[in-house]
Amino acid sequence: MADAATTVAELKDVVRRFVDERAWQRFHAPKNLAMGLAVETSELMEHFLWIDGPASWEVIKQPGKRESIADELADVFCYLLNLSMALDIDLSDALNAKMIKNALKYPADQYRGKFTV
Amino acid sequence: MADAATTVAELKDVVRRFVDERAWQRFHAPKNLAMGLAVETSELMEHFLWIDGPASWEVIKQPGKRESIADELADVFCYLLNLSMALDIDLSDALNAKMIKNALKYPADQYRGKFTV
Amino acid sequence: MADAATTVAELKDVVRRFVDERAWQRFHAPKNLAMGLAVETSELMEHFLWIDGPASWEVIKQPGKRESIADELADVFCYLLNLSMALDIDLSDALNAKMIKNALKYPADQYRGKFTV
Amino acid sequence: MADAATTVAELKDVVRRFVDERAWQRFHAPKNLAMGLAVETSELMEHFLWIDGPASWEVIKQPGKRESIADELADVFCYLLNLSMALDIDLSDALNAKMIKNALKYPADQYRGKFTV
Repeated sequence: MADAATTVAELKDVVRRFVDERAWQRFHAPKNLAMGLAVETSELMEHFLWIDGPASWEVIKQPGKRESIADELADVFCYLLNLSMALDIDLSDALNAKMIKNALKYPADQYRGKFTV
Repeated sequence: MADAATTVAELKDVVRRFVDERAWQRFHAPKNLAMGLAVETSELMEHFLWIDGPASWEVIKQPGKRESIADELADVFCYLLNLSMALDIDLSDALNAKMIKNALKYPADQYRGKFTV
Repeated sequence: MADAATTVAELKDVVRRFVDERAWQRFHAPKNLAMGLAVETSELMEHFLWIDGPASWEVIKQPGKRESIADELADVFCYLLNLSMALDIDLSDALNAKMIKNALKYPADQYRGKFTV
Repeated sequence: MADAATTVAELKDVVRRFVDERAWQRFHAPKNLAMGLAVETSELMEHFLWIDGPASWEVIKQPGKRESIADELADVFCYLLNLSMALDIDLSDALNAKMIKNALKYPADQYRGKFTV
């Protein structure tokens, strides 16, 4: 599977099947999934804790790091997909709608290279 | 755009274009994006803070809640896509690889309905 | 040391000495300490991830759990003390000032037993 | 109140009184307090999101920032005190016990100026 040819729905299916086979849906209250998402995000963040921003581009080049960071990204994504399924939210639609709001909030010509006008 | 017909690459493009138009890449050190992901995740979590797990299924039915929660999911997804682009990680591939590891770690017949054997 | 007889300044001293002896101050940029605080908070949260709120009172009674949860609380407190030292903020004063604001924001007679009026 | 002369127990009393007056204990399941702690920690972290570590020392010098950051530290501390009360954990004792473990794990002479040996 690769991003270029995989729909979000196909990834939801992969995750849904895994959960179904273990009958884990009953643990998947939105509150729990939101907490789990936060826990996984922190594990991802930990890889970049003691280094400065500019150096954080290099972390992934250390031996073994690419795989462990990819695993953490996958864990975050997995919870996000589970949560969107529990709440019956279409992620592509939600992302698109939010980016349109963001574009209105941050007009490109005013915010080029900065966060405040 | 809908999950059924949208690839992850297409969503990456939507986000990349937004960032490009504002020349915000220079703020996007992986350390910052991981922090931003954690901040957005907490904002999502806040919607479920003072209610119990079982009741958390109902939150989204309150007026206005579906849109605000979808917006938070989108913010989390947006950071996840940005981080995967900054690190040049294919999310579909990462998710698939991680789910295979998870399946080996949690055999379905031993973990049905529980987290510990 | 016990809460009844230990000042916050004495706890700051314990932590400061530990950091001094290892010359770790140079890693302690406020950005890093805030991230570390979030990482430790997530590790604490993980103990309560898959159980419901009411049952979360009982977690600490499981064998070994009291010590590991106390350790996580200590880690959070340690980062909070380090961050307050890096920023030269008096925690007792900050807490007191915030509780006064909270009391004005949430008048006791209007908010008894609820979060919204 | 100042750190030099205020015990942790006195701060617990300030927080306990506030909660008692509003009868909010019933919302204070450890699971919820741990989540709230994470939410407040993220709000604190947000102040340092888009700046580099070295520059994060200067954030607090901007107008108004000292008070808002002190407020966020207070919110984090407030949840930590509430959680320690809900779990009946002595924070001073927990911190001291953890620092002793840390000292054994990171001998000062081997870890001076670095995190790995």
